Amino acid sequence: MGEDDERLQEASESPPIPVFFLSDSTGITAETMGNALLIQFPDLRFERRLIPFISTIDEARRVVKVLDTAAAGPITPLAFSTAAVEEVRHELSRTTCPLIDFFDLHMERVESILGTKGIRVAARLHGMGDVKRYNTRMAAVEYAIEHDDGQSMRALDKADVILIAPSRCGKTPTTMYLALQHGIFVANYPLVDEDFETAELPRPVRGLRDRCFGMLTTPARLSQVRHERRPNSRYASLEQCTYELRQAEAMYRNHRLPVINSSAKSVEEMSTVILQTLNHKS
Amino acid sequence: MGEDDERLQEASESPPIPVFFLSDSTGITAETMGNALLIQFPDLRFERRLIPFISTIDEARRVVKVLDTAAAGPITPLAFSTAAVEEVRHELSRTTCPLIDFFDLHMERVESILGTKGIRVAARLHGMGDVKRYNTRMAAVEYAIEHDDGQSMRALDKADVILIAPSRCGKTPTTMYLALQHGIFVANYPLVDEDFETAELPRPVRGLRDRCFGMLTTPARLSQVRHERRPNSRYASLEQCTYELRQAEAMYRNHRLPVINSSAKSVEEMSTVILQTLNHKS
Repeated sequence: MGEDDERLQEASESPPIPVFFLSDSTGITAETMGNALLIQFPDLRFERRLIPFISTIDEARRVVKVLDTAAAGPITPLAFSTAAVEEVRHELSRTTCPLIDFFDLHMERVESILGTKGIRVAARLHGMGDVKRYNTRMAAVEYAIEHDDGQSMRALDKADVILIAPSRCGKTPTTMYLALQHGIFVANYPLVDEDFETAELPRPVRGLRDRCFGMLTTPARLSQVRHERRPNSRYASLEQCTYELRQAEAMYRNHRLPVINSSAKSVEEMSTVILQTLNHKS
Repeated sequence: MGEDDERLQEASESPPIPVFFLSDSTGITAETMGNALLIQFPDLRFERRLIPFISTIDEARRVVKVLDTAAAGPITPLAFSTAAVEEVRHELSRTTCPLIDFFDLHMERVESILGTKGIRVAARLHGMGDVKRYNTRMAAVEYAIEHDDGQSMRALDKADVILIAPSRCGKTPTTMYLALQHGIFVANYPLVDEDFETAELPRPVRGLRDRCFGMLTTPARLSQVRHERRPNSRYASLEQCTYELRQAEAMYRNHRLPVINSSAKSVEEMSTVILQTLNHKS
């Protein structure tokens, strides 16, 4: 049994620690911030529960009962809150459960730096917020679906970003993430064998080099992902995957495209790299 | 000029406050938490800049130079950091720019509640993290694209959630959000006139009532969205939109489907409601 296995087993034997995420809105911020802290404790197990949309004092009181019941149990629970409304925060603060209130100190600090009072209303950071920005994100999702996997080459000039890669390198989820979270118009173009017969960029993207990003992965990973889709095909063979990735890499190099390797990067990390590259270009 | 216009003009006249989001990872947590605070200051304008992947002391020093330059300018800037690595945090803390370090107090507090030290390595909350969970999210995006807009009714039994609504009520972005962020397998089914000719649920989803959610919006909003796609069509007319929404609402009521209204809710809010409903069912 390796060290990791031992650690896993140890962790799975100890009962999970109840963790609550509280919010007067969706709770996405409370979850994001809370999980950023909890990820620093890989040996502990947590049982997470989200309680969103706590908008009245009565609701806050009901939540306090839930928290107090957990706090009376054998394992000390932990709660993270991003409630912004004073009355709700005040009510939640009465719980016997250890509570980390992200607004508590930070809000005063930000107010003092900015030299003005915050409005302290339910945050709605993940509400529609800026309607124009929200509509752009929704339009970007439509555009992404329409232009996924080279389905439509219409309106490519509307693309902010064009992702180019052999099939199954991770274009689609990255496309969706950039569209949904950042309102970026992303098209993607799958490279096929014919695209490698010329030194040029594929015809549909030829005049749009400045928006193109090339994606790569490792042959082993590509082969594995393709085997899941078409087991034992030539398409999934390590040989074919190696060939396509080499050709793609040469193409990206020839045309000096920025390259993103998806083998060890999440869609969030790839999207961050793409956005940083766009910012530096502009 | 209305009050809002005045406020807008006033805001647009004052120079923006430089805001930096610093991270040893993607910076998504720093942005989320920072923006949750900044949204409480609707009268101020901010010029946001993300500096992600600060992983070495040298990089931290370069960032401190950027921050110090901003701090020497006419408007006091503000920086939010979620760097977890001690040396990076220590280096960043030397800046003259006001800095809100989300790990600072919270980490010690969480450590004291949990009774153990955190590992304090670069967070990577938005890295691949749990590979199995990550792969599920990616598979859910594939599934969502395959089953978008009733394109394929294959493998509907694999769906965790089926969104039902007249065309253009917001099914697709909600589907993508649940897939990408939560790894939920979501299919969606567009209601058409023929679906209203019977009292039953549409045939493809008939045996799957427990996974179905009905979506609605207002006739005015639906008509507006449809006009953008097909101007002056019968499809976009207020009359047709009103008819479809009424019929859909009756169908949801008859079959006691949970109903989500997209007219005043963001995809994040709708997704939160759907996830809460799923949790209460299970």
